[in-house]
Amino acid sequence: MNKPLIGLMLGDMTGIGPEILARLLAPGKLAEVARVVVIGDARVLELGMRDAGVRLGYRTYASVDEVRWPADELPVVDLGNIDPSLIKRGEVSAESGRLTGETLKYIIDLALSRKIDGICFAPLNKMALHRGGWPFPDEHQMFAKLTRHTGVFGEMNVIPEFATFRVTSHVALRKAIDLISPQRIADVVQLAHRTLRAMGHLSPRIAVAALNPHGGENGLFGDEEIRIIRPAVDALRASGVGVTGPVPADTLFLRAKRGEFDGVVMMYHDQGQIATKLLGFNKGVTVTAGMDTVFATPAHGTAFDIVGQGRANCSALEYAFRLAAQLASRKAET
Amino acid sequence: MNKPLIGLMLGDMTGIGPEILARLLAPGKLAEVARVVVIGDARVLELGMRDAGVRLGYRTYASVDEVRWPADELPVVDLGNIDPSLIKRGEVSAESGRLTGETLKYIIDLALSRKIDGICFAPLNKMALHRGGWPFPDEHQMFAKLTRHTGVFGEMNVIPEFATFRVTSHVALRKAIDLISPQRIADVVQLAHRTLRAMGHLSPRIAVAALNPHGGENGLFGDEEIRIIRPAVDALRASGVGVTGPVPADTLFLRAKRGEFDGVVMMYHDQGQIATKLLGFNKGVTVTAGMDTVFATPAHGTAFDIVGQGRANCSALEYAFRLAAQLASRKAET
Repeated sequence: MNKPLIGLMLGDMTGIGPEILARLLAPGKLAEVARVVVIGDARVLELGMRDAGVRLGYRTYASVDEVRWPADELPVVDLGNIDPSLIKRGEVSAESGRLTGETLKYIIDLALSRKIDGICFAPLNKMALHRGGWPFPDEHQMFAKLTRHTGVFGEMNVIPEFATFRVTSHVALRKAIDLISPQRIADVVQLAHRTLRAMGHLSPRIAVAALNPHGGENGLFGDEEIRIIRPAVDALRASGVGVTGPVPADTLFLRAKRGEFDGVVMMYHDQGQIATKLLGFNKGVTVTAGMDTVFATPAHGTAFDIVGQGRANCSALEYAFRLAAQLASRKAET
Repeated sequence: MNKPLIGLMLGDMTGIGPEILARLLAPGKLAEVARVVVIGDARVLELGMRDAGVRLGYRTYASVDEVRWPADELPVVDLGNIDPSLIKRGEVSAESGRLTGETLKYIIDLALSRKIDGICFAPLNKMALHRGGWPFPDEHQMFAKLTRHTGVFGEMNVIPEFATFRVTSHVALRKAIDLISPQRIADVVQLAHRTLRAMGHLSPRIAVAALNPHGGENGLFGDEEIRIIRPAVDALRASGVGVTGPVPADTLFLRAKRGEFDGVVMMYHDQGQIATKLLGFNKGVTVTAGMDTVFATPAHGTAFDIVGQGRANCSALEYAFRLAAQLASRKAET
């Protein structure tokens, strides 16, 4: 009963979400790490079971309050809001985006009222959300709005070798350079430190990337390392955070891959994304770090090209679920 | 006799150059692709043979003009300029840098007077060259100066999967963004096209990287793709070059790794270097592209930490040699 309760959400039903969620739940082994409640439309879950070729014993509820633990069968809070026979799969659907956003809002409200301890969701479709009336640049900003979060938060990308955190993200590269400041670096390094501790790293080893080639070569190719990054890193280290940098970006990820760092703080989007995508980020996890509510999702997308073919892989969703359970447990302890 | 004649240079003798060069030459199999002449001090070659634990039959000459082909034994033009007993290995030596620069000048003059068809050199040490009175930002600019080259040229990095070319290189990232122009992109794409053809790609497939995250997301995160990169790529394609782009950088290298492109044109240094280093660029080759003289060298450095231990690997030098031979053959044909 002390295990955290994770709300599992089926993702955008036009994609592979229902299939991988059914496939993940079938072996019943998630109970080792968390209690599970599925939030969504039971008809979409049925669709996922058919795709996955599995049969889950489940029981529907009108609300999560009605579930009695331990639950013999998988509890499903059936919102009855999405009829899969009315929506074409394998393509962007504004209607599916609208309803997916409503389900997300429902599950977020459960977390805000402490009825669940964390949220793990199957892939969303950003364009569908946009067209369905949820006009956020990314899901993290949608979650910040819906949770009324005000402090520092950010996208974390997790692969088995290391996790990345972003000083800047979805802005023009020129703007990103303008945004880099000691305060932003300190905020993100502290966010990384806290989140990596919650992931089980007692003394996280964090590397901060340089901005310029060869780390600026002592000011020859840019002075942001000298003026901004190094002083910020030195101050953080003096405050007791296990942080190194600025490290030239082209050698940093090679070192992180070898296991030298638990977390990498990148200055701009592609710096980390080039590296993590080459290292198989498609099998990794995206976390919205820094919020009271735990959010984790597979890094891959809705995979329209293989929807309904019964061959979608659930390993990234399992990785996301286990990470959500771990982060939610730590949160429960503190 | 029609095979190109490649001048092999021992690199900076403080590093692993002499050892890997001796190890590369020992099996005698390079004759399949080129004729070879070693240019340097025979005492340094002897040192390399001792390190590598191999014995080469060679004959010294005062100049390359004296060599008669086919040569039974390895021809060595003995400059007699570097006494290895006077220079400590495994650390930066200004004196070694000075003499290494002199040897480079000698071998470049041979190429300029068409006595050799290409140059392959073992690792140099940039700091030693600097301290020894050859103050160039990188070897490519040194070669441009010594060959009195005036046109477009640039560093090319080659791994088995693909080759990269640079619109900007050793400048601050902010400056790099300012430098990106349709003309520079056209120059570098054409350089890539010519060089890839010389490497044997009859119809090179070239991808041009975007600058901003997600390729700017239709102007949402920066407009360089719309204003500069896409028009340049479209004009190049219209002129018959097999070029694609702008391609978002974080997916571009994944696609190149899978074999979709022969060459990648990157906007800034770390964009390509993060990717190629993760893909094992240490085993790759650096070429000075765009010059009349062919220059190729292993991507790795002098490896001071393993000098004299008999365990340096010559596979990247062999890759560099074979690439130099191929580029020199093509040049001879045109």
